[in-house]
Amino acid sequence: MKKSIYTVAHDFRIEFYDVDSMQVAWHGNYVKYLELGRCALLDEIGYGYAAMSESGYLWPIVDMKIKYIQPLRFGQNVRVEASLLEYENRLRIGFEIYDKAGGELATTAVTTQMAVDARTGESQFVAPKCFIDRVSALLEENPS
Amino acid sequence: MKKSIYTVAHDFRIEFYDVDSMQVAWHGNYVKYLELGRCALLDEIGYGYAAMSESGYLWPIVDMKIKYIQPLRFGQNVRVEASLLEYENRLRIGFEIYDKAGGELATTAVTTQMAVDARTGESQFVAPKCFIDRVSALLEENPS
Amino acid sequence: MKKSIYTVAHDFRIEFYDVDSMQVAWHGNYVKYLELGRCALLDEIGYGYAAMSESGYLWPIVDMKIKYIQPLRFGQNVRVEASLLEYENRLRIGFEIYDKAGGELATTAVTTQMAVDARTGESQFVAPKCFIDRVSALLEENPS
Amino acid sequence: MKKSIYTVAHDFRIEFYDVDSMQVAWHGNYVKYLELGRCALLDEIGYGYAAMSESGYLWPIVDMKIKYIQPLRFGQNVRVEASLLEYENRLRIGFEIYDKAGGELATTAVTTQMAVDARTGESQFVAPKCFIDRVSALLEENPS
Repeated sequence: MKKSIYTVAHDFRIEFYDVDSMQVAWHGNYVKYLELGRCALLDEIGYGYAAMSESGYLWPIVDMKIKYIQPLRFGQNVRVEASLLEYENRLRIGFEIYDKAGGELATTAVTTQMAVDARTGESQFVAPKCFIDRVSALLEENPS
Repeated sequence: MKKSIYTVAHDFRIEFYDVDSMQVAWHGNYVKYLELGRCALLDEIGYGYAAMSESGYLWPIVDMKIKYIQPLRFGQNVRVEASLLEYENRLRIGFEIYDKAGGELATTAVTTQMAVDARTGESQFVAPKCFIDRVSALLEENPS
Repeated sequence: MKKSIYTVAHDFRIEFYDVDSMQVAWHGNYVKYLELGRCALLDEIGYGYAAMSESGYLWPIVDMKIKYIQPLRFGQNVRVEASLLEYENRLRIGFEIYDKAGGELATTAVTTQMAVDARTGESQFVAPKCFIDRVSALLEENPS
Repeated sequence: MKKSIYTVAHDFRIEFYDVDSMQVAWHGNYVKYLELGRCALLDEIGYGYAAMSESGYLWPIVDMKIKYIQPLRFGQNVRVEASLLEYENRLRIGFEIYDKAGGELATTAVTTQMAVDARTGESQFVAPKCFIDRVSALLEENPS
């Protein structure tokens, strides 16, 4: 996987309604777990959905890849880490979900988003300046 | 239950992702099944979400009651019947979900919706004329 | 509403995937919020799903009532309070969901569960002794 | 994409509860749409979840890739096509989701499943004979 530029973690629990008849979290519910990590990362950048909306851009997911390594079970305490992989053109976020106690890796994922002008509907092949500025500010405050 | 003024049926199947670790449809997923029936009924009235939106009113659910009688299982073919119970003030719909093959009743439910002016946010204690007119037209075409 | 015997609170956030096209949490998703409260209450009693399962009983929801008072919006921090209302025959839990900052009540609900013998499938019109004992122990430790 | 060995189609409608605040189906809900196609394909093979379970194997998803090309909207009638891409070792299914009326492609996806012995939990690097036999029978009945 590409090197992470900035990583944010979010902890949660596997709930009863996410577990299927095989006694494990249904694979489709992991997309929600990625969203928890993505929200945490975008909030940190100062570009959560409210800011995104105000900036005049939508950022639809155009591509998602998930690798399921270990199942997640009801009541399990897990952590999702969301890592900024690219941001200058498309927004690419890498994810790792793992057991909070033992640290075993359960899942890896990558999602790609592309900015779309909310008014014209036009795809942006370069990320909007407002977004790049916020990422730059965050990276300056947190030099690696 | 109040007498039905008009009833519409919608058939569907219990899907894998709706079934919980007890091998039955998770009770929260039934709200989706009610929505399938509600949509079918409102479409028949000519007041589906598009028409509703154009009419300038939102119709939030203000009250929901569900009685779970028999569990629903993966792959089961079921029917939801949505019955118009009241429409002149609030919109009250009654529901029955039952097994399509054997006819055993699995669930009954009632939901209540109230019109809200989309522009002002004001609750309407009498249903909007446009809605009452459509129901009246449907009832005239289908005398009981 | 019946007087609460014991109340537990659980805080959470309204996530993006729970919000519908009207910009509010879809009414069906509230059932998940009730589940969060129920889990917290049952864990406190020492009768979470694992203990329940070991005890040889299932506790399906047989009845659910929800009153929607105020909408919940994306990013809102809310609290669900789950209150034990009855436990000697059926398990009856009352719920209140409200905004964490301002305290406005958004939702009230009541769910009723009935113990079912996991082996025979027989409904229990009196709650199993193991469950009553745990509730009694909790109430003794926390006299009102 | 690899050539399809056998393709099955399933039609459905985008429901209200699948649509997010951007007025399009939330990207996580597409995993349900894939499941509809997968179920239809496995049923055709005679290896639906019941048969799978009887055969003594679980088939967890180990990998999923989704490309989002066009958004899906409330009320849209869509078709998912599920194509068998590989079955002799892992089960690899390709998906296309498109508008039923106009035929525009909305989504492509690929999922990979691996057989796991339900008793021992051991991953199977060659698909179980019972599964291969059923696929072979289907292909003989339907020569390309």
